[in-house]
Amino acid sequence: AAVENVFAESAQGPLSGKHVLITAGPTHEPIDPVRYIANRSSGKQGYALARAASSLGARVTLVTGPTALKAPDAVNVIHVERAAEMLEAVQRALPADIAVMAAAVADWRCAGEADQKMKKREGQETHSVPLARNPDILATIAQSGPNRPPLVIGFAAETENVIENATTKRQKKNADWIVANNVSPATGIMGGDATRIHLVTESGVEDWQPMGKDEMAEALLRRAAGTLSGLRSAAE
Amino acid sequence: AAVENVFAESAQGPLSGKHVLITAGPTHEPIDPVRYIANRSSGKQGYALARAASSLGARVTLVTGPTALKAPDAVNVIHVERAAEMLEAVQRALPADIAVMAAAVADWRCAGEADQKMKKREGQETHSVPLARNPDILATIAQSGPNRPPLVIGFAAETENVIENATTKRQKKNADWIVANNVSPATGIMGGDATRIHLVTESGVEDWQPMGKDEMAEALLRRAAGTLSGLRSAAE
Repeated sequence: AAVENVFAESAQGPLSGKHVLITAGPTHEPIDPVRYIANRSSGKQGYALARAASSLGARVTLVTGPTALKAPDAVNVIHVERAAEMLEAVQRALPADIAVMAAAVADWRCAGEADQKMKKREGQETHSVPLARNPDILATIAQSGPNRPPLVIGFAAETENVIENATTKRQKKNADWIVANNVSPATGIMGGDATRIHLVTESGVEDWQPMGKDEMAEALLRRAAGTLSGLRSAAE
Repeated sequence: AAVENVFAESAQGPLSGKHVLITAGPTHEPIDPVRYIANRSSGKQGYALARAASSLGARVTLVTGPTALKAPDAVNVIHVERAAEMLEAVQRALPADIAVMAAAVADWRCAGEADQKMKKREGQETHSVPLARNPDILATIAQSGPNRPPLVIGFAAETENVIENATTKRQKKNADWIVANNVSPATGIMGGDATRIHLVTESGVEDWQPMGKDEMAEALLRRAAGTLSGLRSAAE
């Protein structure tokens, strides 16, 4: 019976018939064939969102950077390495009803990636890696247009001024919601199984209780499902 | 009977009574709390060496950077992140009879690590990360002194001029042997389960056949055990 209930929820769940597009993990930006720049990200939150969306009945596309995690069942997983590849995969996956951009995308890539391993020069004590701005995946997806998902959710991993930075990010990126959290090492959120978020919407800021990343994922997507049906009612 | 044979080999194996110190994996050099520079390395070769040394009877210390691998049984595993931490752990682990420096240590660290997440400035399109040289762990361990292991083995992961670079590295670092391999993406060695090495010793260069990383680890350590007993005989 338990299995049937799960199936019933999947087939008729609050996200049934919806396409949910999720990004997860870090991006790796190559410096040369053996070196790269990365953002810290275990991918756990994004993978939890993909599992939750699937269990709520959605068709799910998960675009993920390199992680040590097992691909969720019944989810279309697309593996990428760089931000440019992630943007391309996200754009190919559109249209979507909900986009949850949980990946920790590197803001910068190396301006001149080397084909061969850089060699140290004798006595060279300093060096510098020239960087160029990466495409902004959240802002690109959230900009107005026929392919803009009705609900675009971004993430803000901050170490200070969490709410203020997230509120600014929401407006600048044209996102509907920003899920903000404090990733200072002392919080244990980065790489851990628990999280504590602040949900920034048009209406203001909600401080959620600390909870598991799986639990947060389900609560966020149930909320998103409700908002989505409200948007449709308003449009009808 | 099979189990008893393994036990017999461990207790009386060619490395019984020896301490083998192994480094593995990449190092991560923080740029700020969320970003870092890394070398590509799965850690598979170093972990295979630790398992092989243990099965040949050695007491094993494995100093490892961040990897997705399971710690080997019956091995003293020390987890580190940065090159500076790896050097410190290696020095604490001395004395050792054999040191196998298989980690892909970052040559550079960030010269000015930021305490808070770097924020992008409006319209800023380029950037640069100032780097400082990391300590050279292989050269530090291999330099003459009372704590120098009798047999110091380094690794050279190259994408061109493999033998030439490895031969130069052996001399410059004062290593006894260099295990050289070609890590160009086309070879599939990086991250894969197989390898193809060139062993550079005082006597010259040996081109080994392609083999699994486990098989290479055992062959290399059996060879090291033989060399070690030769060194002792010569000293007696």
